[in-house]
Amino acid sequence: MSRRSTIMDTNSYRPEYAEALPEETRLLTQKREELLGGAYRLFYRDPVHLVRGRGQYVWDAAGQKYLDVYNNVVSIGHCHPAVVEAVTKQMSELNTHTRYLHENILDYTEALMRTLPPELDKAMYMCTGSEANDLAIRVAQQASGGTGIIVTEEAYHGTSALTSGMSPALGSGQPIADFVRLVPAPDSYRVTDADLGTWFAARVQDVIDDMARNGIVFAGMLADSIFSSDGVFPDPVGFLAPVLETVHRNGGIYIADEVQPGFARTGDAFWGFARQGIVPDIMTTGKPMGNGFPTSALVAKGDVLAAFSDRLPYFNTFGGNPVAMAAAQAVLRVMDEEGLQEHARVTGAKLKASLEELAATHPSVGDVRGAGLFIGFELVSDRDGKTPDQQLALNVIEELREHHHILTSVAGSHGNVLKLRPPLPFNDTTDIDWLVGALDETLSGYGV
Amino acid sequence: MSRRSTIMDTNSYRPEYAEALPEETRLLTQKREELLGGAYRLFYRDPVHLVRGRGQYVWDAAGQKYLDVYNNVVSIGHCHPAVVEAVTKQMSELNTHTRYLHENILDYTEALMRTLPPELDKAMYMCTGSEANDLAIRVAQQASGGTGIIVTEEAYHGTSALTSGMSPALGSGQPIADFVRLVPAPDSYRVTDADLGTWFAARVQDVIDDMARNGIVFAGMLADSIFSSDGVFPDPVGFLAPVLETVHRNGGIYIADEVQPGFARTGDAFWGFARQGIVPDIMTTGKPMGNGFPTSALVAKGDVLAAFSDRLPYFNTFGGNPVAMAAAQAVLRVMDEEGLQEHARVTGAKLKASLEELAATHPSVGDVRGAGLFIGFELVSDRDGKTPDQQLALNVIEELREHHHILTSVAGSHGNVLKLRPPLPFNDTTDIDWLVGALDETLSGYGV
Repeated sequence: MSRRSTIMDTNSYRPEYAEALPEETRLLTQKREELLGGAYRLFYRDPVHLVRGRGQYVWDAAGQKYLDVYNNVVSIGHCHPAVVEAVTKQMSELNTHTRYLHENILDYTEALMRTLPPELDKAMYMCTGSEANDLAIRVAQQASGGTGIIVTEEAYHGTSALTSGMSPALGSGQPIADFVRLVPAPDSYRVTDADLGTWFAARVQDVIDDMARNGIVFAGMLADSIFSSDGVFPDPVGFLAPVLETVHRNGGIYIADEVQPGFARTGDAFWGFARQGIVPDIMTTGKPMGNGFPTSALVAKGDVLAAFSDRLPYFNTFGGNPVAMAAAQAVLRVMDEEGLQEHARVTGAKLKASLEELAATHPSVGDVRGAGLFIGFELVSDRDGKTPDQQLALNVIEELREHHHILTSVAGSHGNVLKLRPPLPFNDTTDIDWLVGALDETLSGYGV
Repeated sequence: MSRRSTIMDTNSYRPEYAEALPEETRLLTQKREELLGGAYRLFYRDPVHLVRGRGQYVWDAAGQKYLDVYNNVVSIGHCHPAVVEAVTKQMSELNTHTRYLHENILDYTEALMRTLPPELDKAMYMCTGSEANDLAIRVAQQASGGTGIIVTEEAYHGTSALTSGMSPALGSGQPIADFVRLVPAPDSYRVTDADLGTWFAARVQDVIDDMARNGIVFAGMLADSIFSSDGVFPDPVGFLAPVLETVHRNGGIYIADEVQPGFARTGDAFWGFARQGIVPDIMTTGKPMGNGFPTSALVAKGDVLAAFSDRLPYFNTFGGNPVAMAAAQAVLRVMDEEGLQEHARVTGAKLKASLEELAATHPSVGDVRGAGLFIGFELVSDRDGKTPDQQLALNVIEELREHHHILTSVAGSHGNVLKLRPPLPFNDTTDIDWLVGALDETLSGYGV
């Protein structure tokens, strides 16, 4: 298993870049170092000082416009007026908690459940994806009677004590909990087996057997349905079915972490697991749910959740409050009214095709994969050997920021996969041209 | 140690009350049961359906006005226009995360640090108090090299896997983590030792010794500086100094959980620990920080936090985002402009004096204690024996809601302490009269 020193090393600012910074940036950066904890990281050698956002665009303090090809939180677009209006209205009327009755949490849950299979029939609300995954693990452990959890080798599932212990993407400094086992990612680019699903399910069975040898009772598997931090692996559609079956056969709970692929992003379906044709026992979501307003959710099969809630209390002060629910309701409504799922499907397919064309002239393009507006663009130094080229990926990220005013980042265990994940209003002509043209020019500049 | 079945049993709705409910309430309650996880609880036999709030008042769907003597989240008042305006403005401009530069997090941190002792010089931001305490424990464990954590017997510190394992207030269904030890609360009403601080420090030393016998290396102590869920114990001022000294002498980290007493509520100081004259190694806060906008913080001594951040990454997607920081900044500004700390001090003292007068005619009033607008009003069946009267407390809570339209709740290991904790604009004449008159009438009705 490969482990980078930390996920933050990918394209982050370091103190040695300070001297080269413009004065204003240097002062803000220094002030951060003085005031904030040392765990804070900034993107880029020359960090971006953003002041305004709209749709898929952001502007820095100097007025420079950027194309945002990274931020999935603002999924319906930066500063969408429908969310601003919904939050303003509800904040002006009432903002309490779930120990009083309020329609918003009920109306939202009904709307959310219309996007979900009927088996997922009980909802709970928190503030962050970490909180949703933290609770999901506790529910899985109660429902299964076990403790052992499976995640992928480069998974990221959160920042709490429990979820960081199952987030190897945090780097080698972060210990993995002793009841957690890692499986290799379903790397459709490198795994040569004809049936990726069967191969992946066999890896899952391997670690379940390993747990049994160590006296760990298997509780379940937690997986991002698009394996974002592993490098973005959405295909072939259906490959998760044998995994789900394996988890269930061994008495485990399957948790679909939908923080990344959920809310229409993959185009083919509203949820990543639905695109894969499976029904998980629990699903969690977060980031795009409130378009930046802190809100997250866990939805589970009633009997699975009851195993927890019959024994244990749970109350989240801000979770499911009227304002969070108003923000989340506005997001669902806009997605529907603006047809963002279909837009993601069509625009994503067009973007992917354009990126695939780059492979014809750029041998460094090893693989292009993705679903809707979630695309992994993998750079290699050697196409036959599929040798990851992290340095090239980092250089490309920095050049996109500096010369082409495009914001994006990298993923994967080698940090060589560009993670292209824009706000969903991403334009199907001008934005594609902006991004693909910039990549073409940058790779040409490196002669790769 | 006494353990209620769960903290939620205090004054919560139960299914057997359904038949007696008004039609609309019954339908909403049923819908919650259908859609939401079973862990959700409602306050009151007849749950309140709130639709509007302003200052210290809320209104239900039928237009009935209530005096809010419970909700500390909306500390500067329900729906304060300054927070609405700040959130609306920033949400319309930009809402990203801390990997780009933004002034709001720096401006807020400077303002926050002006309220703190200079030793607490590094800040980090999350979304909930649970997230802040979860991280604080991890920091304490890294900084001390130990794992053992001390909390009080009826403590509540959060809802994550880690923090719920140190929250005995969640009830007997919630297991306490094996590296956690409980000390009795500093119950100024029942502990007869002349020096409460020395007594409490000795209890802390006892469990540190117990940890050592079990091979657990002591990491630190996590304590709510006003011991809210233990029953509200703010006095005598200074009693935490020997505890802090004991924690330090044993190589531990002292974490002040300021979610309850922080942000001017106690009147005497801006923070609960400051009122006690101590400087903790880490302080955490949450609830009132954004007046309902989900935001929380951890502030620590630089060297303590560095022990964590030199090794481990931490990133919280929504934590410290420009909108959260705008909301938090508005709260600090309003507290200053409206003089809410002084208001809490003066009004709290007046309220406490009025409540103490009730003891003259009502033998059920065992003790009145508090600081500023955070008061514990303890009901007993036998003043000499100080026998807790939970049933009376529950009856009073229900009657206050039903007949006097006052919202409050209970605390303490026996659930017999009324927790009087209104939004800070609580009026020093009419609101005091409303509350004290209602308590007088209710206790008279029971002939106690």
